[in-house]
Amino acid sequence: MNSEDALKQVVTSETAAIMVEVVQGEGGIKLMSEEFAKALTATCEEFGCLLIIDEVQTGIGRTGSAFAYEQFGLSPDIVTLAKGLGNGFPVGALIGKEALKDSFSPGSHGSTFGGNPLAMAAAEAVLTEVFSADLLKSVQVKGDWLKEELKKNVDSLSIVEEVRGKGLMVGIACEIEVAPIIEACREKGLLVLPAGPKVIRLLPPLLVSEQELKQAVQVITEVLTKLTQNLSVNQ
Amino acid sequence: MNSEDALKQVVTSETAAIMVEVVQGEGGIKLMSEEFAKALTATCEEFGCLLIIDEVQTGIGRTGSAFAYEQFGLSPDIVTLAKGLGNGFPVGALIGKEALKDSFSPGSHGSTFGGNPLAMAAAEAVLTEVFSADLLKSVQVKGDWLKEELKKNVDSLSIVEEVRGKGLMVGIACEIEVAPIIEACREKGLLVLPAGPKVIRLLPPLLVSEQELKQAVQVITEVLTKLTQNLSVNQ
Repeated sequence: MNSEDALKQVVTSETAAIMVEVVQGEGGIKLMSEEFAKALTATCEEFGCLLIIDEVQTGIGRTGSAFAYEQFGLSPDIVTLAKGLGNGFPVGALIGKEALKDSFSPGSHGSTFGGNPLAMAAAEAVLTEVFSADLLKSVQVKGDWLKEELKKNVDSLSIVEEVRGKGLMVGIACEIEVAPIIEACREKGLLVLPAGPKVIRLLPPLLVSEQELKQAVQVITEVLTKLTQNLSVNQ
Repeated sequence: MNSEDALKQVVTSETAAIMVEVVQGEGGIKLMSEEFAKALTATCEEFGCLLIIDEVQTGIGRTGSAFAYEQFGLSPDIVTLAKGLGNGFPVGALIGKEALKDSFSPGSHGSTFGGNPLAMAAAEAVLTEVFSADLLKSVQVKGDWLKEELKKNVDSLSIVEEVRGKGLMVGIACEIEVAPIIEACREKGLLVLPAGPKVIRLLPPLLVSEQELKQAVQVITEVLTKLTQNLSVNQ
């Protein structure tokens, strides 16, 4: 992530497109740096290749803006979407700049369930609700609160490396494998995911209440504090 | 299709599984022969390979039985499902014999939308309605009527090679490319599909009425008769 050298090594005039996440999901809730975003734009311009942003996990309000790339100063040629787009209804989509439209004409990508009326109605309803300025603002506020509160409570623990994220997509990078932490949280009624072996991933519903976020921080703090104490005793 | 020689040529003791449709969909609404079904079972037994039936298009009542393989004397190890399973809701599934269950344990196949409660509720409702004896019987009766009526009306036309199918999955194999026929049917309000370049594919809703089937036969007969006359004049 964020290696301009790696970018220079792999991109040539034969490169058709570069596809990236601006906040890596499975990769560990790692954010793209401002410098890397600039290098990415410059590289695409230099070699005439398309910039594709995978917004499957970050898109549709998750990071506090309609699409996460907006917060990274990028102007992608193509954006891929799924997950949040249907808010539980199975649907995915691809958005492209108008200049590309002749490369992907109607009917060129067939699929049994593609474009079906029920899926389109579900996605339209989601977009109407989630893209409201109030909802996006509340995601930013709640996400900032969650990150700050976690930093205050767990950043000083020896097993915690870093709390990071964007909007309501937050990761707690740990010095140890997180599987037992996730299990302990579940036992206390909090569902969290791993993002790689050593990162706890928090993806609360965008409509999560402040009260629920407080409870979540409390559970995570208890679990991480207890685990840190146990590890100290055993050393 | 139905070549026992081809089967013998490709299957060896290294073959893990054979995957087939019992009524080919895209392949032209071609039915598996009784002899080939027997050869298939014998071959799977001889070489210890699994039999996978692709019921994505033929399953969930389409051919007048819950699964089409039931009408071909087969006992597949694995059955794949989609399309009709959700009746418009995007969902797919894989069914396997109990002996295989350790090869595909919970969590081994992850997917964002897999197993989601809304999809499961939709599929359950579809199965409850479609697997009723009355509905399956009505599909058989309507399918037989449609095939017989088409045979009576268009089989004698020089451009028609054969009317064939199973339940409400019917094909009209033609001597010519069917794209203009499909276009002409659409202009008269009837939506049909091609199955390969020379077969008209009819896949009416399982709840189609007799009156609607009559209208469909009338439109198809008109279009095919007119086209046959035009071709004769031009020759």
